Amino acid sequence: MQIENTFRAHQIPIANARENREHLELLEGWMRSYQPETLFDPHGRLRDELRAAAPSGTRRMSANPHANGGELLEDLMIPDFTRYAVPVDAPGRSTAESTRVFGSFVRDVMQANAGRFRLFGPDETESNRLGAVFEVTDRASTAEIYASDEHLSPDGRVMEVLSEHLCQGWLEGYLLSGRHGLFSCYEAFIHIVDSMFNQHAKWLKVARDIAWRRPIASLNYLLTSHVWRQDHNGFSHQDPGFIDNVVNKKADVVRVYLPPDANTLLSVGDHCLRSKNYVNVIIAGKQPELQWLDMEAAIRHCSQGASIWRWASNDEGTTPDVVMACAGDVPTLETLAAVDLLREKIPDLKIRVVNVVDLMALQPQSEHPHGLSDADFDALFTADRPIIFAFHGYPWLIHRLTYRRHGHDNLHVRGYKEEGTTTTPFDMAVRNEIDRLHLTADVIDRVPGLIERAAHVKQYVHDKLVDHKRYIGEYGDDMPEFKQWRWNR
Amino acid sequence: MQIENTFRAHQIPIANARENREHLELLEGWMRSYQPETLFDPHGRLRDELRAAAPSGTRRMSANPHANGGELLEDLMIPDFTRYAVPVDAPGRSTAESTRVFGSFVRDVMQANAGRFRLFGPDETESNRLGAVFEVTDRASTAEIYASDEHLSPDGRVMEVLSEHLCQGWLEGYLLSGRHGLFSCYEAFIHIVDSMFNQHAKWLKVARDIAWRRPIASLNYLLTSHVWRQDHNGFSHQDPGFIDNVVNKKADVVRVYLPPDANTLLSVGDHCLRSKNYVNVIIAGKQPELQWLDMEAAIRHCSQGASIWRWASNDEGTTPDVVMACAGDVPTLETLAAVDLLREKIPDLKIRVVNVVDLMALQPQSEHPHGLSDADFDALFTADRPIIFAFHGYPWLIHRLTYRRHGHDNLHVRGYKEEGTTTTPFDMAVRNEIDRLHLTADVIDRVPGLIERAAHVKQYVHDKLVDHKRYIGEYGDDMPEFKQWRWNR
Repeated sequence: MQIENTFRAHQIPIANARENREHLELLEGWMRSYQPETLFDPHGRLRDELRAAAPSGTRRMSANPHANGGELLEDLMIPDFTRYAVPVDAPGRSTAESTRVFGSFVRDVMQANAGRFRLFGPDETESNRLGAVFEVTDRASTAEIYASDEHLSPDGRVMEVLSEHLCQGWLEGYLLSGRHGLFSCYEAFIHIVDSMFNQHAKWLKVARDIAWRRPIASLNYLLTSHVWRQDHNGFSHQDPGFIDNVVNKKADVVRVYLPPDANTLLSVGDHCLRSKNYVNVIIAGKQPELQWLDMEAAIRHCSQGASIWRWASNDEGTTPDVVMACAGDVPTLETLAAVDLLREKIPDLKIRVVNVVDLMALQPQSEHPHGLSDADFDALFTADRPIIFAFHGYPWLIHRLTYRRHGHDNLHVRGYKEEGTTTTPFDMAVRNEIDRLHLTADVIDRVPGLIERAAHVKQYVHDKLVDHKRYIGEYGDDMPEFKQWRWNR
Repeated sequence: MQIENTFRAHQIPIANARENREHLELLEGWMRSYQPETLFDPHGRLRDELRAAAPSGTRRMSANPHANGGELLEDLMIPDFTRYAVPVDAPGRSTAESTRVFGSFVRDVMQANAGRFRLFGPDETESNRLGAVFEVTDRASTAEIYASDEHLSPDGRVMEVLSEHLCQGWLEGYLLSGRHGLFSCYEAFIHIVDSMFNQHAKWLKVARDIAWRRPIASLNYLLTSHVWRQDHNGFSHQDPGFIDNVVNKKADVVRVYLPPDANTLLSVGDHCLRSKNYVNVIIAGKQPELQWLDMEAAIRHCSQGASIWRWASNDEGTTPDVVMACAGDVPTLETLAAVDLLREKIPDLKIRVVNVVDLMALQPQSEHPHGLSDADFDALFTADRPIIFAFHGYPWLIHRLTYRRHGHDNLHVRGYKEEGTTTTPFDMAVRNEIDRLHLTADVIDRVPGLIERAAHVKQYVHDKLVDHKRYIGEYGDDMPEFKQWRWNR
């Protein structure tokens, strides 16, 4: 039977030479066809003249420094990220586009690191509001360039191509050979590279245990144009599940951040660009959105991963009746609007607001190096009070990260539950019951004894939900009281 | 600025015609360039001669029956699956290759349904032990066919190509146009189509609410060559996380099955091929493995999704000291071997064995139509006894599905925790602490009061783990007592 040049060559052509004499003879004939006597001396050593033909030193394939990129890695020159801070005089009054602010920082990183930093992404650099980078570089293209093209050149360092696979592959190769980069992508479509991410994370896990492998730069994802703001694209563009896949991988190689505004994004972004040997996933908004923390507060918050937002809470000096937790920009907005409503309607209700920017802080310390100690977790979330957690992604991810925590039985999570369409931003929140009105109702339902005295607030919530549906049906836009809400405490 | 034939045509070329007179004129000029007066009569109606040019009836694009495949769908002719049953005289004594048994059934489905059933997959039909289908059909190829090729023809109905993307796309098109199919794939590499699966699941969710859309055949995945048996391929081929992605989608369109042996695979497979409008994921072994249930028992078990294995339990008539739960072929093997060990060493320990074949049975009834009622769940798992759950995939998936159940706080899950390499089958289990020895130790640690009187059993476990590591280091194979273990009760 023919084996060479057929599919059979992929199998084991001679399986049983140890027991079968005929197979042994076939194997011997095959091996002898390579004329080993011309390759090895009578002692079985490779002949000197052949040994001399092999390259030496770093010319050996196994010792090529580009195949151990950490050997070539130089730290990035990173400008002081606090210089890009958005002024926030009071929380929740002014707006900014977080990724646009971050874009100026990325621009200056690219400026300072020509030759060792590239930005990768499908054709969404402008759409993701990172266009500032085109002040210092172009999109790379080696094809013909037309007069009508913009920011296109053969030496551009923005790698744009409408293939997430290519972006991922290019970036992996760039990192593995000792450089730095950032992959910016629509959140839903990063799932396209789930399998490639898996293999890179496995590689990082194994490489850690190989002494001669030097650490490489982290693989940084900036996911924006996220699930909550696909106003025109709709259901097909709504999928926050990439991070579910990411956290399946070994805790010591994955990090997930959900900065709620521009200054927290700057702080997190700076941290990720400096890190090594991780996969960092940052999810951030690109639309104009309320800003919460000035730079001092942002640094303090991001360094801890999760903290109490004192200015939004009214439980200081006592135990809270309810903990309102949030992670992600839209959940943070809706949580604070719910807190505002609750504090107005039920002023004696003691509310604590906790924001989570580093998702890994939720896991036990034994599971992830960023995990809060149980004492610190209980200090934030309490061990026995209702926790209403508004989360950017699928709600069960929060349960999965916290199921060993003391307060877990009191934890009620709202998140994306695969309800979506082309609709208004507030209606997306309503459909998934993560909006300020549903969160308010959740608090009333879960704080012991509250339902009896807050029935009118619940009625108010239900009435407003009816008003909302009627209004968007008529105007195709959100009610001004929801769109224009500001934190005024 | 040039808009036509440039990237700018992808944007909104005239954004503000309502307020800006100049923009309005531009818009009017553009619209008039289409000469509407030649297309519409003075009343604004499409001219009759143009209307007449459009096709009518099912020639209209929107009414093409192939675009509403459910209209064309005919039920499969499915042979009686019980005819393919593997004889199981007693549980856990004889072995079979589950997917090979299933292959004979698939062969006869293909035989009986020429023209409306195809098998899709990367070049793994033989490797996944489904080769029986080549008795009745070939691999499809329209390229030149060589004498050395086997089972290749232009009208073959096995669609093999080493691209999971193509397989998925072909199958989706085949289903959407009214036919049936099965996608067989290595478990780790089905992640490649995560994003395509997401979109198909979204399509199914939306199509359910569109009255004129007729149900189509389910998208059936058979995942084999799974995480626990990548003895030669190693870490890169070990990833059971596709189902984590699957269960993020709407409960009414996704189903996940883990048949532990051949007869349960036949029963589940028959059920999936008959179903409509779902995505069914079946994970099953292809290696020779112990068989547990005869066909009668398999049907009873699969119909319930999860049930007590009475023959393996010794708690009948009393409350168990521990519930040993399992889902998946390798976890089932290790659980039963642990039960055997425990019953030998600690005969008065009351053990209940629960096997889960339909993962969705674990979710609350309110979350998934297959979910057990709380009463039924408590009847199986108890509300207050330790549950040691050996699971095929990442362990937190079980926590995520059960966190609302009464017994959740007593639930200890073992599964794949991203520890792997090229190693022996038993060592893969040991590295992830899901093997019979670790499961035995888990029981000793978690049944109240047991640690005091079972210290010698725990010592035995630790000694055996040392023996195991030394043995595989020397022989590159598992110890005979682990390989050859049988259920002999």
